[in-house]
Amino acid sequence: MESKTKKDSESINSNSRSNSSHKRERGLQIEGYSLEGISIAGHETCIIVPTLNLAFDIGKCPQRAISQQFLFISHGHMDHIGGLPMYVATRGLYRMKPPTIIVPKVIKESVEKLFEAHRAMDHSELNHTLIGLDVGEEFYIRKDLKVRAFKTYHVIPSQGYMVYSVKQKLKQEYVSLPGDEIKKLKLSGVEITYTTTAPEIAFTGDTMSDFIKDSENVDVLRAKILIMESTYVEDKTTADNAREYGHTHLSEIINFADRFQNKAILLIHFSARYQLDVIQEAMSAIPPPLAGRVFALTEGF
Amino acid sequence: MESKTKKDSESINSNSRSNSSHKRERGLQIEGYSLEGISIAGHETCIIVPTLNLAFDIGKCPQRAISQQFLFISHGHMDHIGGLPMYVATRGLYRMKPPTIIVPKVIKESVEKLFEAHRAMDHSELNHTLIGLDVGEEFYIRKDLKVRAFKTYHVIPSQGYMVYSVKQKLKQEYVSLPGDEIKKLKLSGVEITYTTTAPEIAFTGDTMSDFIKDSENVDVLRAKILIMESTYVEDKTTADNAREYGHTHLSEIINFADRFQNKAILLIHFSARYQLDVIQEAMSAIPPPLAGRVFALTEGF
Repeated sequence: MESKTKKDSESINSNSRSNSSHKRERGLQIEGYSLEGISIAGHETCIIVPTLNLAFDIGKCPQRAISQQFLFISHGHMDHIGGLPMYVATRGLYRMKPPTIIVPKVIKESVEKLFEAHRAMDHSELNHTLIGLDVGEEFYIRKDLKVRAFKTYHVIPSQGYMVYSVKQKLKQEYVSLPGDEIKKLKLSGVEITYTTTAPEIAFTGDTMSDFIKDSENVDVLRAKILIMESTYVEDKTTADNAREYGHTHLSEIINFADRFQNKAILLIHFSARYQLDVIQEAMSAIPPPLAGRVFALTEGF
Repeated sequence: MESKTKKDSESINSNSRSNSSHKRERGLQIEGYSLEGISIAGHETCIIVPTLNLAFDIGKCPQRAISQQFLFISHGHMDHIGGLPMYVATRGLYRMKPPTIIVPKVIKESVEKLFEAHRAMDHSELNHTLIGLDVGEEFYIRKDLKVRAFKTYHVIPSQGYMVYSVKQKLKQEYVSLPGDEIKKLKLSGVEITYTTTAPEIAFTGDTMSDFIKDSENVDVLRAKILIMESTYVEDKTTADNAREYGHTHLSEIINFADRFQNKAILLIHFSARYQLDVIQEAMSAIPPPLAGRVFALTEGF
């Protein structure tokens, strides 16, 4: 590295090189969220949600991911986790706050070993907080934002992540009370509020379509935005082929159309064999009730 | 990954995505060699020599590096070694021959642990041959090409690599003999040839300018092409600052000008803080005897 002993700190932004494959990233504006990143099957997958200060999977560690404080890893395939040490090292280099990284509990130990190996090589601290999260477990990234891991179906252990907004609301019986009365009740120890959660964004990582049928995943299909893989989009590769590789075919998504209550669905992880026009054609052929609310992340195609 | 069980093999070339930061790579033609890659201090360094089928350092694993069979790692800083697992995984994904990776002997065990951690996570083989090479030791990449590790001076253990062409030549005393006489001698077991080596390409990786003064490194300064770091190029950062970070300042290269017998010098690893024009200005101000034979790798600036 250019050295951690460097005294003149440089901001990460002033160092965004024009070479970055991500300079062309315009990001998508969907349902009030800005969604950025790159996702090409086998190459790299990293989805960035700047307003939530998080990224899902790290791919090859695109520049914009570095400024996100939270990173959620879906599974240990190289195109999803390969850039993880680079992400931590670069945040260290620029003296940014050590990131918090959430991984499937089953790979936590391996991820620790990864960092140990790098520390032995580069004599750096690679500071970060590593959290192993099991399916069903939750992690709060803010007081009003929690993330729950949900089950996905891939060829190796994998999980998706569901971001919920969390709000405290006044219980119905106190709504008509004057402010000072409410204050008094609260100070006396009465529980005057209840908690509401709303599924905001779900990210699947790599998975077969089976996650759609999993009754535990009902919130995933109710999230405002569902970011899901659709590795294959045309007939040359069948839905059966997709299953064989642990992936989802667009035709399956269309078959399950009635189940998706999401306001928007962002499809990612298209096969590297596709040219942009193949993806665009497949998108424009999506019938109702999905038509008009399905988007494709085609950065890099 | 998109799956290693995939039956329809895809060539790496047909999958070169247009998103790659390296699509703009035109490569440099220097002294009969094509030199490609990207090198930005702290970000990524990977220098590719396609005609030798090798890369020096792997950076973030740019697309073009994947097709090189041999990889030489100079040291364990993340911007030089971070993409190593991705390089091996991607060659595996595309069913390319497992690569041969040469690393400083002192980090070999850590690199093994890195791959073990990834194998545990992604259940893949990550096939490759890993060679630990000490300073002064040699490795043949072809019968007529050998690479020797040479000493460099960085903040962590590091080494450069020197590629030699190796040729067998007929001994002077046999030059005037007719062909069948030579054949007869050879068959009778007489050693009729001797070996000549010529230093073709040297790569420093990250280093202070001290490697220039190291009498063991005389061949490095005689290589047809010297690829060396020049992290700093202007006066805001002094040569002393450069030393403090384990790097070289362009002013030091200019001060040592008389020592370089190289036909060409390719400067790499400029600080990410520089804009292209700063580097270009510094290049055009290089005085004789270096003027005209110093090139800069500015891909990405």
